[in-house]
Amino acid sequence: MNELELVDRLRRLSSPTRDLTLGIGDDCAIYRPRAGEELLFTTDQMIEDVHFKRTQSASSIGERALARSLSDIAAMGGEPRFCLVALAVSETKWIEGFYRGLLRLAKRTGVTLAGGDLARDVKFHCDVMVCGSVPRGKALRRDGARAGDSIFVSGRLGKPWDRRIELRLELGQSLRGVATSCIDLSDGLSLDLHRLCVASGVAAQIDRVPALQGSTEDRALHGGEDYELLFTMPVGATAPRGVTRIGQVVRGVAGEICFRGRLLEARGYDHFGKRHE
Amino acid sequence: MNELELVDRLRRLSSPTRDLTLGIGDDCAIYRPRAGEELLFTTDQMIEDVHFKRTQSASSIGERALARSLSDIAAMGGEPRFCLVALAVSETKWIEGFYRGLLRLAKRTGVTLAGGDLARDVKFHCDVMVCGSVPRGKALRRDGARAGDSIFVSGRLGKPWDRRIELRLELGQSLRGVATSCIDLSDGLSLDLHRLCVASGVAAQIDRVPALQGSTEDRALHGGEDYELLFTMPVGATAPRGVTRIGQVVRGVAGEICFRGRLLEARGYDHFGKRHE
Repeated sequence: MNELELVDRLRRLSSPTRDLTLGIGDDCAIYRPRAGEELLFTTDQMIEDVHFKRTQSASSIGERALARSLSDIAAMGGEPRFCLVALAVSETKWIEGFYRGLLRLAKRTGVTLAGGDLARDVKFHCDVMVCGSVPRGKALRRDGARAGDSIFVSGRLGKPWDRRIELRLELGQSLRGVATSCIDLSDGLSLDLHRLCVASGVAAQIDRVPALQGSTEDRALHGGEDYELLFTMPVGATAPRGVTRIGQVVRGVAGEICFRGRLLEARGYDHFGKRHE
Repeated sequence: MNELELVDRLRRLSSPTRDLTLGIGDDCAIYRPRAGEELLFTTDQMIEDVHFKRTQSASSIGERALARSLSDIAAMGGEPRFCLVALAVSETKWIEGFYRGLLRLAKRTGVTLAGGDLARDVKFHCDVMVCGSVPRGKALRRDGARAGDSIFVSGRLGKPWDRRIELRLELGQSLRGVATSCIDLSDGLSLDLHRLCVASGVAAQIDRVPALQGSTEDRALHGGEDYELLFTMPVGATAPRGVTRIGQVVRGVAGEICFRGRLLEARGYDHFGKRHE
């Protein structure tokens, strides 16, 4: 199969929508925004021997690559619209499995494959950009947490890194106009809560973390790749079902977190940092 | 420098705009579309040892990485708006040079750095997504060429691959409502004209190619990375200054190209294909 044939197959797999007036097969895709919408953009890489090993199936990589970006859309309260996929692979047979996994999740979440880029390289590398949509001014951001707010997380933390990502798109959308801030847990609770607090100029006190059965409290606090939502709400607001209150926002040094009264170091995953241990 | 510090430095380098209501530093960037605009999306990878060698400067790689995607925006007649940059590097010092080159070109072309993703890997890999804007329904596409149209190219072809890309953004914008089709020359005239003809369901006859001084006709026909615009216009329409008429669109087998009366094979760059030689 050559590049023209590959692109042609992908084009047939991706059907146009009301918004995406031109999909795969030209220099650019064309998107026609709806009245009153704002668009969300995020991009995430999946790299062989960095984010996964070749022993995993190509379709599970494809699914996870899209899921990681969708989790960012969920954290902003968005509805996913379309994606672009940049892919470098050593073997063309990998491409088919990768797209099978990615497109299965895309279909389930209403994402259209709008285009991308293909290259051949010695190892697998992909970058998935997702565009989502929110009503104007309604996106959930990191910088709105206020002293007194309660802090919540969805699901249970400390997942093994190769567990399937459970997306929180509906939860994110239900938090629009209710949560004061939100972030997705990609690099670990301690680091992501630190980021949210820095952005909001506040500190936090937490006293519990809902750990997955078989996991540890340490992993629930610092392990990455959980893809749950961490969010804040004013006291008295009704929390959605299935989330856990873990603590509260307080005045203090921006980004400082106390866990059961002791300072918690932000030890989550940082590609370029020293571990703060 | 750790990831937080890096992201913080980049945030200060990228200033918000009227359209980009939230830039670097949250889960997603937020873009507020203007009334009557359609958005263009394209993405291109630059990979060490595939698209360039490490001997090149990081800033020239950064500039070229953005330029390749901007060339796709030019080919659709768009005005660039913002970009997302996914980057994997082995050494953090590469990052600074890369962004210096990229942001210099971004400033010159009105592009805001809206976000991205950073990872560490053994070799350099980047993916640059650019969003552009056109008035609704005015994008130049590949599929509008009609028998009888004249075929033009901008500039001179057969450039050495490491020559700086001369962007054709203004030319592309001036062709809106005038050209019947347009594509940028990234993989070689023979292959890109073939693609345009396939998309439009037409054939082409060409009788000349404007080769760069010191280059060859063969390289001008088949060499990649020229990043000039190839476009078609109805007979009688006034061509912009500085472009060359190279032939005409004809009825025939879709995608078939004759050069001075002989069938021309599409020999341009195809990452996954056999060379058609």
